[in-house]
Amino acid sequence: MCIMIRVYVENIQDTIMLNAKQMHYLKNVMRCQDGQIIEIFDNQNEWRAKISFPHIHAIEQKNIEQKLATIQRRPKIGMGYIRKSRLEWAIEKATELGVDEIYLLMTDRVNHKYIDLRRLERIAIEAAEQCGRIGVPKIHENIKLSNLPELNWVVAAKEESSDKNAKYYESQDNQINNAQIKSQDTQINSQSDSLIQSNLVEIIENNRTHIEQSNSIDFWNGDGILIGPEGGWSENDLSLLQKYNKVQLHDNVLRTETAVCAALTLFRP
Amino acid sequence: MCIMIRVYVENIQDTIMLNAKQMHYLKNVMRCQDGQIIEIFDNQNEWRAKISFPHIHAIEQKNIEQKLATIQRRPKIGMGYIRKSRLEWAIEKATELGVDEIYLLMTDRVNHKYIDLRRLERIAIEAAEQCGRIGVPKIHENIKLSNLPELNWVVAAKEESSDKNAKYYESQDNQINNAQIKSQDTQINSQSDSLIQSNLVEIIENNRTHIEQSNSIDFWNGDGILIGPEGGWSENDLSLLQKYNKVQLHDNVLRTETAVCAALTLFRP
Repeated sequence: MCIMIRVYVENIQDTIMLNAKQMHYLKNVMRCQDGQIIEIFDNQNEWRAKISFPHIHAIEQKNIEQKLATIQRRPKIGMGYIRKSRLEWAIEKATELGVDEIYLLMTDRVNHKYIDLRRLERIAIEAAEQCGRIGVPKIHENIKLSNLPELNWVVAAKEESSDKNAKYYESQDNQINNAQIKSQDTQINSQSDSLIQSNLVEIIENNRTHIEQSNSIDFWNGDGILIGPEGGWSENDLSLLQKYNKVQLHDNVLRTETAVCAALTLFRP
Repeated sequence: MCIMIRVYVENIQDTIMLNAKQMHYLKNVMRCQDGQIIEIFDNQNEWRAKISFPHIHAIEQKNIEQKLATIQRRPKIGMGYIRKSRLEWAIEKATELGVDEIYLLMTDRVNHKYIDLRRLERIAIEAAEQCGRIGVPKIHENIKLSNLPELNWVVAAKEESSDKNAKYYESQDNQINNAQIKSQDTQINSQSDSLIQSNLVEIIENNRTHIEQSNSIDFWNGDGILIGPEGGWSENDLSLLQKYNKVQLHDNVLRTETAVCAALTLFRP
């Protein structure tokens, strides 16, 4: 049984002054003593270090060739804003699953509320400390689809339904959907918040890749994947994303944060 | 854009009496009217149905060949008990990702607290309604490792570290680990709750399958996967699981609920 105590620091130096939060964590939470060996990492290196409150001293660089190899090509995620608790959860899980950068997307159906970027960054740092990675993902807020970084993105979208009744549901459910998007009713939000919904119209058949038909280890050659918000992509969103390939992550309809996990699990550079 | 309103019922009949919760959901949350068409499902069929409060009337069986094909061999999950909020999250996500049965495991390191099985079942039903599947997973509580159903299980375990310093950390971290397992300190729990930890001793080299070396679509021929609790597997746990193959789900150390998501994403029968 082996638990590493790991602390993220901005730049590894011979002697590092602990900040208040790190002091609290090491002293009160993990009950470390002077002289105890822990692990420190910045975004490039991993070292063993000795505690000498209020400092830690880097004592030996760790052999992290394998870890460095796995981060040569780390996946990026773009995701629509979702409810705070689910967004925080997605950040934690995306970090564990090796995400490199997270773009929070301003899509048409985003009901954008204030987010505390510092809090999200702290969640990412804690997850990185726990899961053993040597880097902390960057989080970018308020990214417009028209302003995405020039990368080879893949878009997560539900396959067009082969159900003969699909059109029937579509017309009927439009009114419900509109009510849902616009409503402030928290009960509705709690029921259908952050569902990625089928889009029966916009997905272009020829432009779609089925995971089922490909090896999921290398199922895309992209740099990252874009995942819709609660309410799914709008037609306008999809027209902005037209040039990218589409993938369906699962037979079931996945919530945004579930899709983040599934995508990063399948993305194995 | 298409949102299905879906309601799980125990047995589809011509006329089904709605219970109080279903009435509330359809009337107050989704604002359905008499005459509106929704979708109902039991564990075997999916129908269109017409609302006529307080009843719904099954009107047409849906073509679900594709869905039935995907459930011919649904994955099962065994997972150690973890903190309530994380356990509930795992149930929701496992349902979305197609789990068939969930076994809550009484492992050595489980700090077993009272769980509300009915609440977990409701979470599974709601997730099933939302994600489009036609069955609801069964949840089994208090399963001992010595009493697992006779299935071809695969065990999620972290690969033995190739780090030369691993033994060093192991001896040093034992004391921290013991403190963590036994402590009631909630801060410690919040930091390291539900981590799946490396086990440097017990994993038998010959018995391990590396996902990296296999096609993740069919990376196991098993019926399901077993995932450790907060604190990981004990040596005793692993001796009880000796006959099963081991897999490492990810290079990083995954929390229990993250491992549940990763395993079910990779399991594509």
